[in-house]
Formats: sequence, C-alpha cells, structure tokens
Amino acid sequence: MFICDKERVKDKIETFAQFGAAGRGGITRFSLSKEAIQARNEFVKRMKALKIKVFTDDLANMYATVPGSGPALPGIVMASHLDSVRNGGNYDGVLGVIAAMEVAETIVRDKIPHRHPVTAMVWTNEEGSLYPPAMMSSGILCGKFEKEAMLLSKSPEGKTFGEALEAGGFAGDPANRLNPRDYAMMLELHIEQGPVLEAKKKQIGVVEGVVGMVNYRISTRGQADHAGTTPMSYRKDALLAAADAIKYLHTELDKLDKNLVYTTGELVVHPCVHTVIPDYVEFSLDARHRDPEVIKQVVKAIRGLPKKLDKCAVAYREAWARKTVLFNRDLVKMVEKQAKALGYSSMKIYSGAGHDAQYAAEMLPTTMIFVPSKDGHSHCEEEFTPVEDAWRGINVALNTVLAADAGFTEFHRPPAD
Amino acid sequence: MFICDKERVKDKIETFAQFGAAGRGGITRFSLSKEAIQARNEFVKRMKALKIKVFTDDLANMYATVPGSGPALPGIVMASHLDSVRNGGNYDGVLGVIAAMEVAETIVRDKIPHRHPVTAMVWTNEEGSLYPPAMMSSGILCGKFEKEAMLLSKSPEGKTFGEALEAGGFAGDPANRLNPRDYAMMLELHIEQGPVLEAKKKQIGVVEGVVGMVNYRISTRGQADHAGTTPMSYRKDALLAAADAIKYLHTELDKLDKNLVYTTGELVVHPCVHTVIPDYVEFSLDARHRDPEVIKQVVKAIRGLPKKLDKCAVAYREAWARKTVLFNRDLVKMVEKQAKALGYSSMKIYSGAGHDAQYAAEMLPTTMIFVPSKDGHSHCEEEFTPVEDAWRGINVALNTVLAADAGFTEFHRPPAD
Repeated sequence: MFICDKERVKDKIETFAQFGAAGRGGITRFSLSKEAIQARNEFVKRMKALKIKVFTDDLANMYATVPGSGPALPGIVMASHLDSVRNGGNYDGVLGVIAAMEVAETIVRDKIPHRHPVTAMVWTNEEGSLYPPAMMSSGILCGKFEKEAMLLSKSPEGKTFGEALEAGGFAGDPANRLNPRDYAMMLELHIEQGPVLEAKKKQIGVVEGVVGMVNYRISTRGQADHAGTTPMSYRKDALLAAADAIKYLHTELDKLDKNLVYTTGELVVHPCVHTVIPDYVEFSLDARHRDPEVIKQVVKAIRGLPKKLDKCAVAYREAWARKTVLFNRDLVKMVEKQAKALGYSSMKIYSGAGHDAQYAAEMLPTTMIFVPSKDGHSHCEEEFTPVEDAWRGINVALNTVLAADAGFTEFHRPPAD
Repeated sequence: MFICDKERVKDKIETFAQFGAAGRGGITRFSLSKEAIQARNEFVKRMKALKIKVFTDDLANMYATVPGSGPALPGIVMASHLDSVRNGGNYDGVLGVIAAMEVAETIVRDKIPHRHPVTAMVWTNEEGSLYPPAMMSSGILCGKFEKEAMLLSKSPEGKTFGEALEAGGFAGDPANRLNPRDYAMMLELHIEQGPVLEAKKKQIGVVEGVVGMVNYRISTRGQADHAGTTPMSYRKDALLAAADAIKYLHTELDKLDKNLVYTTGELVVHPCVHTVIPDYVEFSLDARHRDPEVIKQVVKAIRGLPKKLDKCAVAYREAWARKTVLFNRDLVKMVEKQAKALGYSSMKIYSGAGHDAQYAAEMLPTTMIFVPSKDGHSHCEEEFTPVEDAWRGINVALNTVLAADAGFTEFHRPPAD
C-alpha cells in the first residue's frame, strides 16, 4: 500500500485556511473572489513546484496533470472545489483539492510508477454562493445547464458570473474541458458533512451515490388583520396554518423510512409585523432519500395536506427534483477494498449533499470517498476533520487511483461516441 | 339633535383619499411626507374657508379653533391623524380628522350656539410608519416620550423625525400644545378596525377604553446543519421547535377568556436557507385584554413554555407592556346617550388598537367613538366604511361636543395645577 505525508496534508490544510479567513476559524471564499484567486494561485504554485503545468478550460476549471508512462491512455481525475459558502469552514471542497494535490505530490515525489495520466482538478463555483446555481461548472460540462445562461447569473451586488470569469484571469480553452474521451474516471474526496461516520466510529465512507430529492414550496394564505381588534374566531392566521402544516408534514413523514431526511429551512412571513395577523406564509420542504419509492411517498404526504388549515388556503408546488445518482459499482468496490487493505474501518454511505461528482458521473465512471465531520457540522465555521482522518482518506484515494491505474480495463467502458 | 351634511362628508373622504393614493384604492401617506403635507394643506384650506385660523405646536400638531361665546372657557378638542401605514386605507385616522372638520363646519355654517371653543386637531405621526414609535406626538405631550429622543428617530432611509419636522414647514410654538389648562376634553372618532360592530349589526361603538397588552419575544435555539446529510435523530431544528412553541401557546391561551386576542405576527428564521436546518427562530407574541388578570394568565402561560422543545432551547423576554386605559366615564355615557337619541344602534366596546386618545386620556377627560369597518379590515387598502356609517358617527360626535358644551361642569374637573 502507498501512504502520503501527514505533515504535508496538515501544511496544505493550514495554508489554504488563510485564503478568506474570517478570523473565527472559518472562511468566506466565494468563487472567483480575491480570496478564491489567492487559493487558485497557491494551487498553481504548488503544482509548478512539482513541475506540473496547470491548464484551465473556458469555465476556469483547473487541471494539473502528472503524465503517465502508458501511450496515450485516458486520464484519472481527482477533483473538488476551492470556493465556500459565506462563513463556511476549512474542509468542504478544499479537502478534496488538497487530496488531489497530495496524491499528485506523493506520486511525483515517491516516483510511483503509473500508466495513466493523473490529474488534480479544481471545479469553479461549486457552492454557487455568489452566482447560483450550485455545481455550475460541472453542470455545464455535463449538459445540465446552458453556459450562456450561466454567464448571466448575477451576484446580489449585480455582477455576473461572466464578468467575474473574465476578471478572474483563469478562463482558458474550452478544448481543455473534462471529457469522456481524454479522461477515464473521476474520484472526489469530501467530508461527510453529517454525523454518521463519527457516530458509527468509521474512518472511511464508501460513497455509493447521491440521494435523490424533491424540493417543494408550500404556502398558506389567510387574511391580514389588526392584532388588537380582530377577535380570535374571525381570524385567518396564515402563520398558525403554516405551523399546523409543518406539524402535519412531520407527523406524516416520520412514518416513512428512517433514512429519509426532510427539512423546512426557509420560511417567510408576510407582512411580518408584530401587530398584524400574517396573511401569507411560504416555506420550503426539502426531502432526500436514495429510494425513489420513498420520495414518491413524500410527495403523496405533501399532496395529502388539507386544502384548508385554520381557515387558510394551503397550496404547494414542486420547485425542483433530482434523481438518485449511483456511482460506478466497480469504483465503489475498489474504494472499499483499499480502505480494508489499509486497515481502516469503513461503511457504505449515500451522500445527502450534492457534489460535482454527481454530474461528472453522467460523463465518466465516478465515485467519492468520505471522511468524518466532527459533530456532523458543515457549511459553518465549526466544520472540522482531524488531520489524521483527512490523511487516512487521502491514503484511500491514492491507492484507489493506483489500483484503477493498474486494473483499469476491468471497469472502464469507453463512450460510444 | 344636530345633523351634519352627508354629501360634505363624502366629499371630504374622497378628497383626502387622493393624497398618497397608491392606485389600488388605498394610500401610503407617511407623516410629514409630501403626500401628508398635501393633506395638511387641504385641512388648512378648508378651515380657512370657514374663517378658522390654524395654529401649530412645536411637533406640527395642528389646531383649528371655532371660538365659543363664553368668556375664556377651556376648549373641546376633536382630534385624529392624517398619516397612514404603507398601503393603508382611506379611513384609519383621516376619518377622525374629517369628523373634527365636519363638526367645526356644521357648527360654523349652521351657526350652532356654543360656549366653549371647539377645536379640530391633527396629531403628527400617529402611525410611526417612518419614524417610530407610534403615537409619538401624543406620547411626547403626555410625558411618555422625551422630545429630544424622538427627534432622533430615524426612517429606514436614515432621515430623522427632527429633520422631517423642520423640512415640513408646519412646526410652530410649543405654547400651542394641547394642555389641560386651555382644553377641557378630547373626543376621537375612529373606525373600529375590527369586525365586531359589523357582526353585531351595531352602528356606533361606544368606546370604554383601550385594552392593556403585553408583547413578548420568544426564541428557539438549535443547531444549523446540512439538510441532506443530517439524519433526523441528530437534528436540533429551531423551526420545528418554534412551530411546537406556537402550537403550545395556542393551546394554553385558548383556555383563557374568550375576549383575549393574541397574535404571532412576526417570525424570523435563521439562516433561512432551504438546505440548512434552522438554528435560530425568534417570534413575537402580542396579547391584549382589558382585564389585567387575564394578561397575568397569558404571562403565566408563556412562562410555562417547556425550556426545551425538540432538543432546542426555548427563551422569552417581555418587549413591552401597557396597562388598560379607561376613558372618562361621564363622556362614555354622553356618547352612548347621543347615539340613542339619534336612533342609532350602539354597543360598548374596547379598543384593541392603540390611539392618540389613550395618551390624551392621561391629560384630559377623553373618549372615542367607533364606526364599523367592513369585514373588519384595517391597515390595508381594503379598509372601508360606508359614508352612511361615517356620517352617523360624526352626528354622534357633533351632538356629544354640543352636549359637553352645554353640560360641561357635570364632568369637568380642572387639574390641580
């Protein structure tokens, strides 16, 4: 088995944590911002120190490739992202880039023989914090989004993604885009962003796929009236109706499969004045499960909402949905095998969060590796994964890349083209 | 009995509805705004046409006095306000000013003999829409608020009330302020702003007082985590806890007196992102009842909230409270007597909303007259009171003023001074 350098991993985590540091342990590093450019420059600098040239495509996705010994073989890509949410942490995304860098560095420094090119890649704008949607570049590359429409995506300050892309100085040749002819597979290491690995005392999450989800907008419409002058029996209180709708949904959804997760994260009250009975409330319902049958039951429960609650009209509409993405079965097995061979405890797991890997999976054989998140926290400054855990995950990644390099034909099916 | 002119009332309602008309039947007429200045100019113009001079005090409250025949008797004031909330209606406040104008006009045109001066008055900034708090001027005159602090009250755009007062051109002499030496009583006609008169088929509300209230801020604190990666059993969902707290309060408060009204009008979710489990929710609870014992029971119910709901910490604090204000008993009886003599159906009622009259009541014998609000709506563009109903209310006001003028010594007790 091959092992990477724990001190180098620590150094990388600490170095990247400086770019966009918010002074309270976390970072704000929006894609293509000054802070993100600093992080990109660090990536380029470190790759150049290993004599690896960095290319970019037209979306500023970065590719640093260690050549393989074989004749014109397709590449093995490890990729993640350097951008963060507002007041995010030092692990989401960046740890996958660090893993890719460390795998490349270990292969170069230890002169590990390999046939296929090995590429450390950085996706642009995974979070979509300034320029929605999330996973924008991978979405464009895989045909989910139109590039022209994405270039017009606007930050709250009115700057477009296209303008940021041009100003950033990292946009390159569209011919450099990740594609199924030049590349054979993609691997992404990521923090779990949930508490399961920690709770089950497992060191490695062998990710089988990304769960499907539905996102609904549910609303209640009543009548705005004066809080002081309207007797209780005359009221149509949209917030009371919303509270009842939320309770109803919890009761119904709690009856379904225990692996279902569902969340009302957003709720907006109108007019939101303490002396006025609310006339309109709208809230989100995000529900995720790997089994489409369970998602169907969720939709059935939403459709079962009473049409009237507390004399208010209840309405709902699907905002969006995505199907469960299954990762390449051979690659999943390969990850599991490497973890076992390294003596690490592991478990199979589904990702509840979205990742660029789920779009890449439509193009290339793809899988992910999870490492534990302390207390399950993510997208916040408390986000933490001990160096030891990160290092173990990168060791699994390194050995998976090398196993794939050796036994590639076993699972690689070239596209029809 | 004396009767005012229905056509004139209609004309006044229609004229004032133009100032700040938002094009959908209602108005936005913030105190001291361009639109409010237009309405003030109309008041001055109409009073001048009756040869009544208009004075203002240092807070731009306006006073138009019809002299009485008696030697140096204190004045009888009718007062309300011309400002509105955002997208308010054509009746809240302005109908009380129209009533005061119409009473003065009827007395002048019909040459109705009277001993006391009769003053039509306009309060500045009753709604507090741009410059909080509500009932600012009456609060200053009655010693509830410090004038210096109020001058610094800022609009959302950063303009102070003091600046608006200076720019408005209506600020006058502090010596003109309503005071208990120069004035004997105050009467305010207002729309009910609730559905009770309409539902009970009563034409006049004989207002006994303004109900006391408490306003609490209640919060739930959980843990922000990823909506997709956090199993249900690991969650501390502050919004679920808030929904449970609201349901708990409704269950407990519904057990109390049926005249209690309570409202959660404001509720804010943090961070309010559809993919994040909310970590903090804060909401208001406004509860009103004339009996302080019932308000005590409300506070007891709030204190009885579980300290933990859905693993989230529940906290509460009193934001403010006000005691029930009882209007002058003799004046209340006098209003009831006039309504009866005019052949109008009436009922005793408490005001659930706050009015300048409640502060004035601390200075002068004061009472109010309510007229019905269609469907109980108020503080919205649908706010409506038929001319016929308004006219009836003004007739009650006119006869109350004249009855007070005749039988004043019966209830007037001059201040100790």
